[in-house]
Amino acid sequence: MSDSENTLPAVWAWEQQNGGQFAGINRPYAGARFDQALPVGQHAFQLYSLATPNGVKATVMFEELLERGYSDAEYDAWPIRIGDGDQFASGFVAVNPNSKIPALTDHTTSSPTRIFESGAILMYLAEKFGAFLPSDISVRTEALNWLFWQMGSVPFLGGGFGHFYYYAPETVPYAIDRFTMETKRQLDVLDKRLAETRYLAGDHYTIADIATWPWYGALALGRLYGAGDFLQVQTYENVRRWASEIDARPAVKRGRIVNRVWGEPEDQLPERHDASDFEYRTQDKLAGQS
Amino acid sequence: MSDSENTLPAVWAWEQQNGGQFAGINRPYAGARFDQALPVGQHAFQLYSLATPNGVKATVMFEELLERGYSDAEYDAWPIRIGDGDQFASGFVAVNPNSKIPALTDHTTSSPTRIFESGAILMYLAEKFGAFLPSDISVRTEALNWLFWQMGSVPFLGGGFGHFYYYAPETVPYAIDRFTMETKRQLDVLDKRLAETRYLAGDHYTIADIATWPWYGALALGRLYGAGDFLQVQTYENVRRWASEIDARPAVKRGRIVNRVWGEPEDQLPERHDASDFEYRTQDKLAGQS
Repeated sequence: MSDSENTLPAVWAWEQQNGGQFAGINRPYAGARFDQALPVGQHAFQLYSLATPNGVKATVMFEELLERGYSDAEYDAWPIRIGDGDQFASGFVAVNPNSKIPALTDHTTSSPTRIFESGAILMYLAEKFGAFLPSDISVRTEALNWLFWQMGSVPFLGGGFGHFYYYAPETVPYAIDRFTMETKRQLDVLDKRLAETRYLAGDHYTIADIATWPWYGALALGRLYGAGDFLQVQTYENVRRWASEIDARPAVKRGRIVNRVWGEPEDQLPERHDASDFEYRTQDKLAGQS
Repeated sequence: MSDSENTLPAVWAWEQQNGGQFAGINRPYAGARFDQALPVGQHAFQLYSLATPNGVKATVMFEELLERGYSDAEYDAWPIRIGDGDQFASGFVAVNPNSKIPALTDHTTSSPTRIFESGAILMYLAEKFGAFLPSDISVRTEALNWLFWQMGSVPFLGGGFGHFYYYAPETVPYAIDRFTMETKRQLDVLDKRLAETRYLAGDHYTIADIATWPWYGALALGRLYGAGDFLQVQTYENVRRWASEIDARPAVKRGRIVNRVWGEPEDQLPERHDASDFEYRTQDKLAGQS
């Protein structure tokens, strides 16, 4: 036990002013804060999300399925503006009681099925379509090893490093040091793996890559938190080779802009209902996206 | 961007003295630090682990399978003393390149299959034996929703709250506040769910419960970090009802002591190779374990 017990109260009390950029929406309890139903479009799948790294996992998965010809993977994507608290509407909480994006409903089942957590959404779609998760037990097992690795590792990157390096209202050197060390260790885990294999599970591009790329790929490409120099991301050469290869996939270019509500107008597609929704962007624009 | 860039170096430098109880073993890179093979016993499954909450997920799963009569789930469990750095041996790193417990090998396949990450181990065993993960798609989906919820949430409890409340060498009020709020929110997510259903996925005890109980069940029962009062865990009545029910399961009582190398002698079973290994403990002892 550290000495923290000596200076902390016996019972924690909520100080509402603390917490940085998202201080206004973070609270120590769960549940709906207001009544509002979710919109529902015409397709079998209704995605409620935002183009953060966790959201991009889901939109890339849908776009990859469509790219591969699974026309039953058509989906409506609705933006959930987490800065405005959309995730606390009663309709959203009914789909994801954890109030985080992405959340999905499948309307092909007798009653709509809810799927929450990005990893669960990838698993669900991979099994529904038989895609991006090979049935060969050795490949499947290795893909799930890395999928779960990503789920358990990202909070140290996003909730740890990203928060204390980028979002926190005060500088906490101890916390920055702790989460920087872990983030670099994680990058090195990936770098050593990708020195051996083309993709995380081996020769096949799987949901493990789709889950990992929006976080560690973006980080290695210098797009996350402006932390490229601080973390010396250029030293993780194998991660960067893998990240660049995935970055060039057409489905990834499309998936990155779905539910995006910031940046240049041509990089935004707040709602997505049809493949033609991308047509306002020329292929040159998609090709040049950075 | 916060003002942290103004006070931080442009490139992070590793200060080896930082980091608390595990400072001596945490490093910003991955991979083996010394050559040493892992021991291999007679059973199909070889588990390399420790009785931390993540380790208990795996040992409870094996004991539940055996309790239900799946005799093919016999396993050898070997202790990995993470404080001594066992997880950096070449043999261990070959099974889990992330150097974390639990790690598993399955020797029933043509060449041994490696499985790492506690969530991946639970999925693998559930699918191998067709147990604790119902095939009904609605139950299965809800179980996986909560399994992935647990994977993405626990780092805020363990790597966030637990670290800053219990392990960190200095008191960081901002970090304690941040992670306390999130931990209480997570407990409330569970409490609201368990107000509706007996188990996380509904009527069935599944791998979602097996994954979640060693962390949030232990926390709600006041066993983790001595933080019961601080978090006011007694207010989460539904979590405590669920936690107590699972706590009474014979397989859970056994699973909790496998690979345990601390506490009272009768609460330790550093290595487990056979069901008879538990016989040194009377049934009364098992029944009275707290």
